[in-house]
Amino acid sequence: MKTSILFSGGKDSSLSALLMEPFFEIELVTCSFGLLPNGELAAKTAKELQFPHRILFLKKEILEMAYKKIIKDGFPKNAINYIHEKAIETLASYPEVKCIADGTRRDDRVPVLSISQLRSIEDRLKIQYICPLRGYNRKTVSILAERYLRIEEGPSESTPKADYENELRELIRQRHGEDKIRELFPAHLQSHVLSRKGQQ
Amino acid sequence: MKTSILFSGGKDSSLSALLMEPFFEIELVTCSFGLLPNGELAAKTAKELQFPHRILFLKKEILEMAYKKIIKDGFPKNAINYIHEKAIETLASYPEVKCIADGTRRDDRVPVLSISQLRSIEDRLKIQYICPLRGYNRKTVSILAERYLRIEEGPSESTPKADYENELRELIRQRHGEDKIRELFPAHLQSHVLSRKGQQ
Repeated sequence: MKTSILFSGGKDSSLSALLMEPFFEIELVTCSFGLLPNGELAAKTAKELQFPHRILFLKKEILEMAYKKIIKDGFPKNAINYIHEKAIETLASYPEVKCIADGTRRDDRVPVLSISQLRSIEDRLKIQYICPLRGYNRKTVSILAERYLRIEEGPSESTPKADYENELRELIRQRHGEDKIRELFPAHLQSHVLSRKGQQ
Repeated sequence: MKTSILFSGGKDSSLSALLMEPFFEIELVTCSFGLLPNGELAAKTAKELQFPHRILFLKKEILEMAYKKIIKDGFPKNAINYIHEKAIETLASYPEVKCIADGTRRDDRVPVLSISQLRSIEDRLKIQYICPLRGYNRKTVSILAERYLRIEEGPSESTPKADYENELRELIRQRHGEDKIRELFPAHLQSHVLSRKGQQ
């Protein structure tokens, strides 16, 4: 079964691809608004991981709406979930796309779609949706990632990652400056995958 | 990482084993109260699938408590979940068991532990818990099972399966007869795995 995995170049989406690889025909898809070279960054990681990759450009209106949400809310959750849902809708609008996957873990809170949101997306867009890490906790994911991936980790402002947050941060930087980013986004660690480790 | 998968010989636990096989050292574990030859039945399937297998005998008190629950409730959900939780506790009490998995899917309702129940089990019993199919819906699981497994399917009263329900049904048969089983358990299809299909 051919599956398109939403791919940021981070640990979770990379590991999702590895876990699905023996059973699915994988393509990695990185969404970008064209504000930062997200797509190119992820393409490099995808090549290291030896998966086919493509960049999916999303409409700027989606980023503008997400911007409105984060400014109104004062926190990123709803804005990021909104981009995630619109990314899935955009990807599912391609007739060859029948199955979409993402790297959300059991403990993730953003971006996460509820089971009823997933069912609605599957029914409405005529696709199947898979979250291969949804039954894995953070610790197990870390153990697997450590074993199968070479990773660099660091604070989100300095570690390059092609996720939705990255371009939303950039837009806020352009319009409000650095301080506003620190106000809106909680500090956290990002992971950026470099390549596979040899399997034992 | 060595993982013990709770194994009924059905489609979901068999597929869980296949999905985890490339990344984990798998053993299949079938729980039994000794009321039916559950363990032997599952051992045969495990052998066909080429996984190590063992039978874990559970204390009869657990079945008695589950019996009380189903008679009081008039439906099996809480009784089955109770056996599931006690099975995990029993398995986790072996010091060599560090990681336990089961075959629950995204759409399953019984037996399913909530995220907070899973966290409590992990903290209390010092294990990691994995549900490799938790991010897969029924349709995707069916497609994968159809591709990788030879299966027989039929009504639950005539299809042999080594799950918790089987022995609880048997106890009710012994004490109340066939009609009571039909009253307490909704009719549904069971799957019994015969062997692997050749991978493409």
